[in-house]
Amino acid sequence: MSAPRGPRDLIAQTIEEIGRPDESAANDAASRQGQLTKPPGSLGRLEELATRLAAITGQPRPRLEQRVIVVAAADHGVTARGVSAYPAEVTGQMVANFLAGGAAINVLADHAGARVRVVDAGVATDTGSDPRLETIRLGPGTADMTAGPAMSRELAERALAAGIAIVEDERAAGLDLVGCGEMGIGNTTSAAAIISAVTGRPPATVTGRGTGIDDATHALKVDAVETALRVNRPDPADGVELLAKVGGFEIGVLAGVYLGAAARGVPAMVDGVISGSAALIATAIEPNVREYLIASHRSPEPGHTATLEALQLDPLLELDMRLGEGTGAALGMTICVAACRLLDEMATFEEAGVADSDSVVEPEG
Amino acid sequence: MSAPRGPRDLIAQTIEEIGRPDESAANDAASRQGQLTKPPGSLGRLEELATRLAAITGQPRPRLEQRVIVVAAADHGVTARGVSAYPAEVTGQMVANFLAGGAAINVLADHAGARVRVVDAGVATDTGSDPRLETIRLGPGTADMTAGPAMSRELAERALAAGIAIVEDERAAGLDLVGCGEMGIGNTTSAAAIISAVTGRPPATVTGRGTGIDDATHALKVDAVETALRVNRPDPADGVELLAKVGGFEIGVLAGVYLGAAARGVPAMVDGVISGSAALIATAIEPNVREYLIASHRSPEPGHTATLEALQLDPLLELDMRLGEGTGAALGMTICVAACRLLDEMATFEEAGVADSDSVVEPEG
Repeated sequence: MSAPRGPRDLIAQTIEEIGRPDESAANDAASRQGQLTKPPGSLGRLEELATRLAAITGQPRPRLEQRVIVVAAADHGVTARGVSAYPAEVTGQMVANFLAGGAAINVLADHAGARVRVVDAGVATDTGSDPRLETIRLGPGTADMTAGPAMSRELAERALAAGIAIVEDERAAGLDLVGCGEMGIGNTTSAAAIISAVTGRPPATVTGRGTGIDDATHALKVDAVETALRVNRPDPADGVELLAKVGGFEIGVLAGVYLGAAARGVPAMVDGVISGSAALIATAIEPNVREYLIASHRSPEPGHTATLEALQLDPLLELDMRLGEGTGAALGMTICVAACRLLDEMATFEEAGVADSDSVVEPEG
Repeated sequence: MSAPRGPRDLIAQTIEEIGRPDESAANDAASRQGQLTKPPGSLGRLEELATRLAAITGQPRPRLEQRVIVVAAADHGVTARGVSAYPAEVTGQMVANFLAGGAAINVLADHAGARVRVVDAGVATDTGSDPRLETIRLGPGTADMTAGPAMSRELAERALAAGIAIVEDERAAGLDLVGCGEMGIGNTTSAAAIISAVTGRPPATVTGRGTGIDDATHALKVDAVETALRVNRPDPADGVELLAKVGGFEIGVLAGVYLGAAARGVPAMVDGVISGSAALIATAIEPNVREYLIASHRSPEPGHTATLEALQLDPLLELDMRLGEGTGAALGMTICVAACRLLDEMATFEEAGVADSDSVVEPEG
């Protein structure tokens, strides 16, 4: 860890460090669930969730106290094709909003007791020199993927390495739970291309309305996804190539966060369709990453359910949220925290002096 | 409010005070949603929820800061029929666990920033003299409803009035959001009878496994519900009669909480099948109560979906929770708080200097 490494080495080493969740911690957690003052299984998915979080963290009673939402922002050359309802300048304007604390993710991260780490992964406009902004800036937005690769393979590796480095940095400060959020006008177009490539579903079935586009814009968007896939022909089994050809800088950073989290045993929340596409890239690079992911919610974006199916994840919430920024991840974090607090803090039947169901009286009838 | 009143007068006055939600506050909230820095509608059900909470509270930007979960406990004579997996002593033991802070509701209420108000509405065993326990004790459990009414009409009125008085008391201390929880071995049997009577569905289709009973016990339980309805023939349009004949003391107190909350414009969370049956009684007494209810979650108990349909409520969460105690209500509260904080705290497009979708550039393609 001390010698300077290039992005490719960091990625390779991270992949090597990704193991399997700790079944022993999961067994301890499940055993404790059976002793807590409640009918067995009556907390439903909260019990399964806490047990999974025990396996991921290797802690029989995980607390998830240090929580961070990484919000990566970048622009997309494909916006030149008129695929969004918003002008590309909004990406940079929203970065300023994140820093000022006025965006939805600021409110929901605070609600979830999580810190927001804002990353300029490659915004086209000047995002200034606010010390709270982490500036990676792999370029002034990607190239238009309908005319060739969105970025070089080297830039894709740098994006992934930057995400890994963020987790390493946060882990040193005690990170227990990470969520992925993003901002990038045009990035649902990129996400649709990734999802179509990985799942094999036609672009028209996984391309949604994003921020809320009309039929004509949606037709342009589907065409852009089809064109990008036809022009680039990405190999879905090669996650780095997939990212380079039809991805985005913020998607690469988030895929790196997923890789880094898996390597460090940190549970990582998947948000909507864009962080979902980043998770697809991370699992294409290393399938075991999947074991460390928690799906926070189901978005109404059509590509999201396809993504969750490909990741074999069942989301915690279904509230028709489609904002991105990590908003669903933040809300999902609150469910994870609740699940872990129940496991850790509830009294056992023995501690509370409550009769268990084993001591049931025989029916008199 | 100053003259001493009997339970019947208090109920009548409360019904009179139940109005309709404030459409003007709802319109203000919806208008603000459109100005916040997010694509219109992108927060999905959180937007609808905040707008509904504005209507209920009459506040365009409600904060819901003072939150209370009322956990009412009581025993049920029908347990003599062997309908539960747990002995009836567990009701009193769990009251002690609530007071000691070791139960699931203690953990989740704390997670939701809510206070737990524990009420002995009629527990069969001695619950002691803990000053934190509110002792109403309408009897040492109800009578066996398979042999006649569970309680007299007078006791049913006293239970309802006690619930109303709790809301009045809490409202004086600033209550913004109330949740209903309960504990009572045998109370899913009572709830099933209420649900069957109100919805007209056969007992076998709305009677579940409660704390986790086997097939033989389930058959006894269905038979107990059928017998109670045949013996008592409650009029489903008369909420007080329904409560008296097949209800429970804790169910009556919670129905009173729903009536009182509606009269005071306090949003009230419905938890699982038992607090749902209390909501059915409250809406049988005054249909407009429905407008003040928020369904926190969907329980896998078969009677719960029937209850939510009868109440015309769409639950926020679906996590297979079936513990009761107000656990789903507490978790649902966190979603309500998040929705209101978003409405109140997010920056507008104008405040943040972010371009709205009206300023979209024309597609170039």
